Parts: sequence; C-alpha cells; structure tokens
Amino acid sequence: MQTITHQHAATTAAAQRIATHIARTPVARHHPLSHHCHADVWIKQEYLQHTGSFKLRGALNAVLSLTPQQRRNGVVAASSGNHGAAVAYSARLAHCRAIIFVPEHASPVKIAAMRALGAEVHRIGDDSVISEGAARAYAEAHRLPYVSPYNDATIMAGQGTLGLEMLAQIPLLNTIVIAVGGGGLIGGVAAAVKATHPHVQIIGAFPQHSAVMVESVRAGHIVDIPSDDTLSDGTAGGIEADSITFANYRALVDMSVLVSEHEIARAMIDYIDSTHHLIEGAAGVALAATQRLGTALRGRVVGVVACGAGIGVSRLMDAAHLITD
Amino acid sequence: MQTITHQHAATTAAAQRIATHIARTPVARHHPLSHHCHADVWIKQEYLQHTGSFKLRGALNAVLSLTPQQRRNGVVAASSGNHGAAVAYSARLAHCRAIIFVPEHASPVKIAAMRALGAEVHRIGDDSVISEGAARAYAEAHRLPYVSPYNDATIMAGQGTLGLEMLAQIPLLNTIVIAVGGGGLIGGVAAAVKATHPHVQIIGAFPQHSAVMVESVRAGHIVDIPSDDTLSDGTAGGIEADSITFANYRALVDMSVLVSEHEIARAMIDYIDSTHHLIEGAAGVALAATQRLGTALRGRVVGVVACGAGIGVSRLMDAAHLITD
Repeated sequence: MQTITHQHAATTAAAQRIATHIARTPVARHHPLSHHCHADVWIKQEYLQHTGSFKLRGALNAVLSLTPQQRRNGVVAASSGNHGAAVAYSARLAHCRAIIFVPEHASPVKIAAMRALGAEVHRIGDDSVISEGAARAYAEAHRLPYVSPYNDATIMAGQGTLGLEMLAQIPLLNTIVIAVGGGGLIGGVAAAVKATHPHVQIIGAFPQHSAVMVESVRAGHIVDIPSDDTLSDGTAGGIEADSITFANYRALVDMSVLVSEHEIARAMIDYIDSTHHLIEGAAGVALAATQRLGTALRGRVVGVVACGAGIGVSRLMDAAHLITD
Repeated sequence: MQTITHQHAATTAAAQRIATHIARTPVARHHPLSHHCHADVWIKQEYLQHTGSFKLRGALNAVLSLTPQQRRNGVVAASSGNHGAAVAYSARLAHCRAIIFVPEHASPVKIAAMRALGAEVHRIGDDSVISEGAARAYAEAHRLPYVSPYNDATIMAGQGTLGLEMLAQIPLLNTIVIAVGGGGLIGGVAAAVKATHPHVQIIGAFPQHSAVMVESVRAGHIVDIPSDDTLSDGTAGGIEADSITFANYRALVDMSVLVSEHEIARAMIDYIDSTHHLIEGAAGVALAATQRLGTALRGRVVGVVACGAGIGVSRLMDAAHLITD
C-alpha cells in the first residue's frame, strides 16, 4: 500500500486533472434516513455524474494521465457496464483510442453507446471473466495500457476525488457509507479523506450475496469465492488476487455491513419513488446499509454514496418483484 | 385569446422573474430518433427541472407575481402530482403560504414532501375533481388566489419560458413536440415561440386514451368526455369549460398526434434504458409521437419536450408489463 499521504497527493492531482470534465454532483439531505437514524444523513448523488456513475472519475484520471503518443496508440478495457461507458467517454474527450472488450451477451444498447463515442468494441466469450482475459491478452500483445476498473492506483486516485468533494460539500461530515465491489471507490475515498480527516469513519456496504472483500479480510488474503446473483450487479463478482485495493480496505475501512436482496430492493424503490431519480443496485446497497445501521449512527453526520444509475427497467422490475413476492 | 405579442411579452417577463430559481435544463441529441426520422432530434430534458417537472416554471411565475400581502395570505391549489410539488416548492422560496388540496388516496410520500416544504395539505374526496372543487370553494371563501395548473395566463407565461430556452439552446429549431393535457405548456410555448419564430411547427402529442383537446378542437368548443386510464397520468383528464388554453391550441398548434399505450410504454422504457434517466408517461407520449411521425419529420430540427419525471416504480412496472404481455 502506498502511504496515505502519497495517495492523498495523487487524489488532489487527479481532482485538478479531471475538474473541468466532471460534474460536481449535488448532495441532498435525506429526511427519512436522518429521522430513522437520529442522524444527519446526506446522499451524494453521484448517479448524476456524466455517464451515470463515479467510474468516470477514475477513467478520466487514467486517460488524461497518458502521453499524447499513448493516447494515439490507445487503451484497453473490459466492461459493458459503467466502467466501459466511462472509458469510452473519457477516451473521446481526450482524443484517445479506446478498445473495449465485452461478453457476447452484452446489451446492444450499451455497445451502440460506446461505439457512438468512437470506441472499438469487441464481443467475446459468454461471461465477463473471458472478455477480461481477452482484453488483458490484447493489451499485452499490443503493449497498450489496460485500464482496470479498480486494481490501479490512478483509477483509485480518480475515484478518491469523490471523497474530497463530499468533505467540501457536507459540513462536519464524520461518516461515509459506500458499496464495495473491487474496492476502488472505497479505497480511493478512504485514503483521500483520512489523510486529512482521520476521524471520519468509513463504512463498507455489501450484498450478502456477494461480499468477497469481507471474506478476504477475514481470510487475511483475497479469496476466490463464487458470488450469488444480486441486484447490485455493479459490485458483484470476484477480486483480482493481487488487487491493490485490499490493503486499503484492511487498513482504512472501519466497518463492513451486509444487507439482503430484499433490503436492497426496498431501499432502491423507496429512493426512486421519493426522488424520481433512478439509482442502480449498488446505490441501494449503501442506502440499505445505512437503514440497517439505524441508531448506531445516532448523532453522526453521514454521507451515503449513491454511486450510479446503471440500471434498466427489467432489473428494476426484478427489485419490485422481490418486495411484492 | 390575448394577442401573441402580449403573451410573448408576458413570457419574457416571466423568464426574468423566475431565472434565478429554475434550472436551465439541458438538451441532448437523440441519436435513435434522429436516425429513425432522418431528422435532427433533440430532447429537452425538463425532467431534470427542480421538483421534477416543467410545472415549476408556471407555479413560480404565479407565486412571484404576488404582492407581499398576498403571499402572507397564501395561495390555494389542487394537485398531488407535479403541480402540487411545484406550488409547494415555489411558495417555500417566496415565503408564501400554500394550501393544497389532494384526494384522500393521494400518495403519502407526495403529501409528506409537500408538508416538508411547509405547505398545508388537505385530503378530501375520492377523486381529483372533488379535491379541485374543494380547493376552488376554499379559495373563494377566503378570497385567496387559486393557482390553476393550466387555465391561467400567468401559469401559461411561466410554462412558455421553456420554449424561449429551447430556441436559445437548439440552433435552427423548427419543430417542437409536446404532450398535451390541459394545454398550458403547449399554449405557453407556442405563443412564446411563434411571436418571433412563426415558422416553427408546434405538434401536440396525446394518448389515444385521453385526447380531450383534440376532441374539443374537432367540436369547436371544450367537450366534457371521459378519459380512459393512461400511462400519461400527467396529461390525463378533462379541461375546464372556460380554459384560456383552448384558443391558443386552436390558433397556434399545427398538428395533433395520438399514440397508443403500447407506444407510450415502449418509448418510456427505451428512453430510460438508454439514458438511465427516469421519465414519466407524458414525456413518453411526446417521444412516441415523434417515433410515430418518423420520416414525416425528414430534414427538420425537432425539439421533443421530455416534460417530467413524476413517476413511481409501480407505474413503471405497468409500462413494462404492457410491452411484455
């Protein structure tokens, strides 16, 4: 793990690098959760970020850190979700070539959107492990940078800018709740925030169906365990064995909270119905964890990261069915 | 009908009056519709307006036009939907008392939101005709201004500011598509736009299940006919017999297009899935009408008003079921 001071400096540099291209997404006080927790609960509406998720912060930082020659040669990524959209968008902005690998069954709408931004999209394999492998092999063969969705210091520094923003936007902030998949967002935010505000509690939120980081911390090393299907597809799945995010999570995250699919669905639907803002499952995980913590948060000033809006109507119907069944 | 010049002046004044309090909502090019219509199709993302719909423009204009004494006395409105939210929000901003009548069965979430803004909410009757009647009677008895959702020159002038914004945002704009209920939005926009840009075509979009304005134009006077249930609840229902919006529609709207519930559902879901932005049925009506017009729009520069996000998950599920059944 790079020192926290070093990571903080990298995040501050990232914030300057990406400033003109990202939205400073709003924070809004959440009255029902504030009431329920006897706390001051704020939602960081990062789903209003360009491309619909925080992933843009890291992807932009990665692409804007390249030399002009590297941009001409291009970058490689694997994702049909928020990360893919973020890399395609960033590459377009930076006049960088982007080669993106997605599984065969990836949504045609999402592929078309990436192509419209100028990305070269390759469909390969029947799951994301295969398309990721193909992307890495392609990057190695062509000596191009592979942009990982989380296992990369530049990506983590970019995601960390969200933490700096929250500190600036929420006076007296002392608690941050973030859904965890690979750990890039929470790792980046924790380092950026704790370097100057070590008293701020960082809480990781997980679906019970996919909590690889929690199991890994328990085992003392990253474990390769299967995940069950979850509404939080943005955080689902395994973590690379060498991921730099693991050390950050172990050292800097204060608590892990697991929530059920039912709790995630309830949180998503309540939020969408009351705000008319669309959020994805991962955002629902952070909201559900805050709900679950309840008065354990009494008196605290809590920032809940609603990280993205990467969801379609059919997935939202899955959520609705879960709470009506 | 007030002269178009007079209405344009009222809209320009409204734009100045409300400028600091409303969002200048973005426009975004819509690639699939542009391709389908062989036209340049832009979406006016008015669902990103504060309170989630264009209704804020009219309500703010009405409330900010009151004297300090009138604000202390208060205004009366009837709506548990976008108009109610807009009046409550505007009244809070203008330090104005707001008394809002809603039906008994109105959503507790929406009532709580209006009360959180300081509005006095009265629940009465089992449908909106009854709560509207009660609101008007209350306003008359207490000599307070009743803020109609559409039948009011000040409201129409406020809604018209959306047309001025579109002219400024979309170069060479020559066609505007708007869903029609009471006709306040389309009437205001048509007057504001045609005063200076008489060549711009204004197209009214309707659910087949509720097209009272179309039937009224056909009859030569406002008709009182029942509406069937529609996904476009924001535009559903009858029009007051004396509505000033009728003359505007007759004089200034160039074409009316009717779409099926299936077309509305398809348009909503395609839009939500591709943008991850939530839109309500009325916005789906305008999108569906544009889709239906297809190459009849060839070569034109089209602004489609996506007017609001006033929808909950259960209504969205109705839409999803419609296209899967």
